[in-house]
Amino acid sequence: MDAKIPGDTTTNGILPSISSKQRGKVYLIGAGPGDPELITLKGLRYLRSADVILYDRLVSTELLAEAHPGAELIFVGKQPGCHSLAQEQINALLIYHAQHNQTVVRLKGGDPFVFGRGGEEAQALADAHIPFEIVPGISSAIAVPAYAGIPVTHREYTSSVTIVTGHEGRSASPAVNWEALAALGGTLVILMGVKALPSFTQKLIAHGMDADLPAAVIQEGTTPRQRVVMGTLATIAERALKEGLSTPALTIIGSVVTTREALAWYEERVK
Amino acid sequence: MDAKIPGDTTTNGILPSISSKQRGKVYLIGAGPGDPELITLKGLRYLRSADVILYDRLVSTELLAEAHPGAELIFVGKQPGCHSLAQEQINALLIYHAQHNQTVVRLKGGDPFVFGRGGEEAQALADAHIPFEIVPGISSAIAVPAYAGIPVTHREYTSSVTIVTGHEGRSASPAVNWEALAALGGTLVILMGVKALPSFTQKLIAHGMDADLPAAVIQEGTTPRQRVVMGTLATIAERALKEGLSTPALTIIGSVVTTREALAWYEERVK
Repeated sequence: MDAKIPGDTTTNGILPSISSKQRGKVYLIGAGPGDPELITLKGLRYLRSADVILYDRLVSTELLAEAHPGAELIFVGKQPGCHSLAQEQINALLIYHAQHNQTVVRLKGGDPFVFGRGGEEAQALADAHIPFEIVPGISSAIAVPAYAGIPVTHREYTSSVTIVTGHEGRSASPAVNWEALAALGGTLVILMGVKALPSFTQKLIAHGMDADLPAAVIQEGTTPRQRVVMGTLATIAERALKEGLSTPALTIIGSVVTTREALAWYEERVK
Repeated sequence: MDAKIPGDTTTNGILPSISSKQRGKVYLIGAGPGDPELITLKGLRYLRSADVILYDRLVSTELLAEAHPGAELIFVGKQPGCHSLAQEQINALLIYHAQHNQTVVRLKGGDPFVFGRGGEEAQALADAHIPFEIVPGISSAIAVPAYAGIPVTHREYTSSVTIVTGHEGRSASPAVNWEALAALGGTLVILMGVKALPSFTQKLIAHGMDADLPAAVIQEGTTPRQRVVMGTLATIAERALKEGLSTPALTIIGSVVTTREALAWYEERVK
């Protein structure tokens, strides 16, 4: 039941319409991690007011159904290994529709500013003098562990949480400092596919991270299809592959992972 | 206008009521960072269904106004230097009301699992065999920089973001590895007051972090009272004190802070 937007909020007229002076603007909106009811009120309000919606692969159909009947929906998502639209093309589409006086929503999974390339889109809009707003979304990096019963921080276990992505390594972005990452001692959340995970965990161990640290891989977190595989830094990559986990998935490493045994509320609830 | 919950969503009957079998349960809900419209749909739905609401200092009055007329509202927040209720007392209240068959909402600023002590509350509930759910909230650590025009990650600038808090240092939680934190090279978000900032930044510099890294302190981010002070790792603590910034505030350090010059959309909008 939670996987649906509450029924009659689809009624037209519930939310204030956007006035004409706000036309020709782009809203970069985080859709949240999977459970469609984790979008913000503000995100839903703008989504319903949009003339044009550019959306990603991980955005749920329940949310797209909230678009008004005349809205144009454009899929700009990336399939793994098969890019449908280059980032430059997405930027150009955002600018084009805003310049044609449209209210444009860019709907992204998770949060637009957590490895979502929202920063690059905002820069393209600023360069083109297109007004824009950022509507943060619930980040998968925090909410997916939460639905698995793992708080990313906890006073007894950790003083910090670090979020890294494996995908960034492919680009021209700064290299990961493996030694520092291994030594930090806080919770580590890795936003990357299961296939790339073995080399990542091996590097952490090679740079001195405790191989016995508890770890979990969570696939399709916050959805009824959520799957969790537990292990240690040394074993987690192999276990996740063996269990057949696949994208979208994230990995969390740190002593706080042990709390899952007592706190796995989501699976309890849907039993 | 954005600082309000959209008008007629206060209508009774919009959201499904919680059935009797779900009574005697606790919902740990993240209220988000300040802008009340950044609560999730799920958070608002449970908030409206609550019999008892235990809320923190940073929760906005607009959200509390969404409680149903018969709901009991209990303030359990901490004023700086003046703890109104110990954590154990809060845990006991949650358990007491759930055991008396109430639908209990624990409404916390930001996200309950990002330095919100939600993990400890969930453990107390699990120990007492009280069913609970976690409803993630928009974390200040990500959304406050976003409203200041700073994405916490960006492909051109950083491969990671680390969130730390100064307050944890007071407790028995693990010590920060300053050397690793200084060497990591990603974005650093520090959730702590302005007064404690000088010793924190000095330690980072002493452990080798580049003193010229761009930095910003943001007070009351995502609200119309948002204030931003810019500087470098070396100067930011003194500048924030000189400008009279006070709690609630956070600090962000890293090259990504430079994007604010082009991306400061929120102040532009409210001009």
